[in-house]
Amino acid sequence: MKLRRVAIDTYHENVAYLHRDCAVYRAEGFQALSKVEVKANGREILATLNVVDDTSIVGCDELGVSEDAFAQLEVPDGHPASVSQAEPPESIPALFRKINGERLGREDFRSIVQDIADRRYSKIELTAFVVASNRSELDREEVYFLTEAMIASGRRLDWREPLVVDKHCIGGIPGNRTSMLVVPIVAAYGLVFPKTSSRAITSPAGTADTMEVLANVELPFDRMTEIVRQHRGCLSWGGTADLSPADDVLISVERPLSIDSPGQMVASILSKKIAAGSTHLVLDIPIGPTAKVRSMPEAQKLRRLFEYVAQRLHLSLDVVITDGRQPVGRGVGPVLEARDVMQVLENDPDAPNDLRQKSLRLAGRLIECSPDVRGGDGFAIARDILDSGRALARMEAIIHAQGDKAFDWKHPSLGKLQLEVRAPRAGVVTGIDNLQVAQIARLAGAPKVRAAGVDLRCKLGDVVSEGDVLYRVHASYPADLEFARQATVRHSGYRIGSADEVPQVFVEF
Amino acid sequence: MKLRRVAIDTYHENVAYLHRDCAVYRAEGFQALSKVEVKANGREILATLNVVDDTSIVGCDELGVSEDAFAQLEVPDGHPASVSQAEPPESIPALFRKINGERLGREDFRSIVQDIADRRYSKIELTAFVVASNRSELDREEVYFLTEAMIASGRRLDWREPLVVDKHCIGGIPGNRTSMLVVPIVAAYGLVFPKTSSRAITSPAGTADTMEVLANVELPFDRMTEIVRQHRGCLSWGGTADLSPADDVLISVERPLSIDSPGQMVASILSKKIAAGSTHLVLDIPIGPTAKVRSMPEAQKLRRLFEYVAQRLHLSLDVVITDGRQPVGRGVGPVLEARDVMQVLENDPDAPNDLRQKSLRLAGRLIECSPDVRGGDGFAIARDILDSGRALARMEAIIHAQGDKAFDWKHPSLGKLQLEVRAPRAGVVTGIDNLQVAQIARLAGAPKVRAAGVDLRCKLGDVVSEGDVLYRVHASYPADLEFARQATVRHSGYRIGSADEVPQVFVEF
Repeated sequence: MKLRRVAIDTYHENVAYLHRDCAVYRAEGFQALSKVEVKANGREILATLNVVDDTSIVGCDELGVSEDAFAQLEVPDGHPASVSQAEPPESIPALFRKINGERLGREDFRSIVQDIADRRYSKIELTAFVVASNRSELDREEVYFLTEAMIASGRRLDWREPLVVDKHCIGGIPGNRTSMLVVPIVAAYGLVFPKTSSRAITSPAGTADTMEVLANVELPFDRMTEIVRQHRGCLSWGGTADLSPADDVLISVERPLSIDSPGQMVASILSKKIAAGSTHLVLDIPIGPTAKVRSMPEAQKLRRLFEYVAQRLHLSLDVVITDGRQPVGRGVGPVLEARDVMQVLENDPDAPNDLRQKSLRLAGRLIECSPDVRGGDGFAIARDILDSGRALARMEAIIHAQGDKAFDWKHPSLGKLQLEVRAPRAGVVTGIDNLQVAQIARLAGAPKVRAAGVDLRCKLGDVVSEGDVLYRVHASYPADLEFARQATVRHSGYRIGSADEVPQVFVEF
Repeated sequence: MKLRRVAIDTYHENVAYLHRDCAVYRAEGFQALSKVEVKANGREILATLNVVDDTSIVGCDELGVSEDAFAQLEVPDGHPASVSQAEPPESIPALFRKINGERLGREDFRSIVQDIADRRYSKIELTAFVVASNRSELDREEVYFLTEAMIASGRRLDWREPLVVDKHCIGGIPGNRTSMLVVPIVAAYGLVFPKTSSRAITSPAGTADTMEVLANVELPFDRMTEIVRQHRGCLSWGGTADLSPADDVLISVERPLSIDSPGQMVASILSKKIAAGSTHLVLDIPIGPTAKVRSMPEAQKLRRLFEYVAQRLHLSLDVVITDGRQPVGRGVGPVLEARDVMQVLENDPDAPNDLRQKSLRLAGRLIECSPDVRGGDGFAIARDILDSGRALARMEAIIHAQGDKAFDWKHPSLGKLQLEVRAPRAGVVTGIDNLQVAQIARLAGAPKVRAAGVDLRCKLGDVVSEGDVLYRVHASYPADLEFARQATVRHSGYRIGSADEVPQVFVEF
């Protein structure tokens, strides 16, 4: 048959189009929506079959494929191609055993994860795996097997350096852009820190979104390694490197189901980091009433699971449990967060001190991975690097190497439309809801609209008078501002009370 | 926008097509594959969005929809239509609670099942519900809530009769076509028995497939009720009546995952029967080494769950645990099973006695639902009806009423291609694998090829000499016969041993 590009964008789902009167369709007894294998020029892809009744879309001798699928085959329009019923994935019996509550072994996970990475699983099979592995369905050795299989499913980088450091936060705290400070500090100290970050999935800004305000983040792999060789660090988007590809596929069903089970979180984070070639990782688990992890016992349990898997995979891991009671810094949204980061790097007296302190402590921990630094000395080294302007210089070098964009941190261009949310009465700020602040920033347009977001003017423990501005919402489009406004009316995200009502957490920092 | 029928058959999944340059697509910030709501002429449907780059498929002012979706809107090509982002289903918070292992209440199940029946759930959400309700995740009261919600999601028939009987088998035993004998016997006795059956999903023949050899089974609802009024019974396909519509949607994900959990089985069976207006049900649970249920304790546990839910829903239920060690009758496949059924009805001396006995016992139990029959007398009444030819006469009347097809039970037209599987040595038949026999019959073409299947010449306990024919495989196409042949070589499905190795089961019949 002749391959034909059908100009329909079906996103990540490959679709093949066959005419109903086509001989192959009739002979093979295909069903619409069944999985088929399309082969052309030695390449093969899996696709879902749609049946066409209009020869202007595909003719009887043509095999149509959607845009993405066509690109994957890398052949010109009209090239010979064949189509056949796809074999069911080999790991299906193992999947069925997991659905039935059985414990799986190393080979089971390897074959399931490989099929997932090869996109051989349907949405139904993927979801079944995710839900059947949810909650405490995986024991810690199974989480180790899953992590190992996820690493094996993709590329694994080797920096040929004895020490490759990284940091990661399990997420859920708006404004928590410490990576953009920790990377230049630690790279300036001299450790190799090839930081790849994700874009926001459910949050108002990911590190990649915020870094993109300052520099290009979509770097070809060779360019990224070159920058790391020269500057010891980078801040790029991790989406292109084919690291732990099964993870991205799993996330595509975990996200719509809001599933964030400990086992899947550990496997996702550690597989990405180990595949990226990290040898030492500092992991940030924030706790607080509206953080992902709400209590110290829960955080300790999660810490032990991370530590068990990391140790089995020979990753040196340092878990820190941090204050997650409220957003970090002031800005929530790409441009606002970039402003906060630059204020700290520039040693601006008005810089948010919580962001500065947290970044220094995390950087200190990473610097202590260096064999010639004594435990406890890292913080002071990090502070010297920041205060002396060496961190700023390193950040500027990295930005320049990645391709810089114009950004005036003193006068960042924020969304022109604004609204202010004010204190309904005098008192002390006793609660700031991370989830609500994130939601308002997203409704205002972040992260898609870079200039949109929330700018916090008060933090926990601040004394306010009635009518004081608690925060400002920035948006670029009237509909966005209106959505955000409605959300602030339903729940501002702030609680005002008395000083003794401020919740306490006892954490490392 | 103008509605346009795009001649692509996307099966049960509605797809909407928007051109990438279309103003609505740009303004609304749609994503490919997101759910959209299409409205035209007061009707609305949900669809998945595909983005098109070719104006010959849809133009910038057009809203394309796939064939099925177009048919649902019931407006002509070019009719005004609008599209908007679909609201997420209301029951999603309840779904998330179930995923997290919480117990749900009556209202939760009602809203989940209604969203499922309205096809508001994505494949991901559906699968998550099925897997999160799998195994023992639902307690018995939750199974009751689920069943009740499934009944409420569709139509509920009212026959305006004090006694409406039905029978059902949980499945898994090839050749088990007792309904086609029980219906004419019980209807001839005078009870109302409006039997609707399914087609085979994973088995080589369903009752609807087998009945279709003898008569038309796709009856309009009004015609079916007319036949029942006149003849007290019918044997039609149940797919058109809109009974428990959520069940069909759930099955679409349970089937590819081979999920058959007790809670879902009970809800599926009882919701269909109660929605069909049954007041009395005899339920057949076969047990045996290769049946769905393998032990008596397991069968008793399932029986109690069925009884609990039936009682809460005021259905009179009689569970019988039967011999499921081997296929029932001789034929496996629509034509072969129709032959067995007619042999029994015709009182042919060569009729398979196990099928006759089992049908008489089930019919006897149903006849005992009648208030004027003493417990224990049903069997003899049923036998009289069968032996006297009244059951045959009633079956012929029903066949004629539904629209009869030519069928010569003495010389059924079987697949012309044949192979025989013979005993490798002398001995006694000590095992017949239900699953393997079903698999061989399916590979031979059943149920799609009506004349294909397996004809068993020996049953459990039969003495065989080396080279005796154990069974014959019939097929209509060489490729089918070859697939079946390979399966018989891998495993014939028969075990030959000594008389004392025949497995025993102690069941009601």
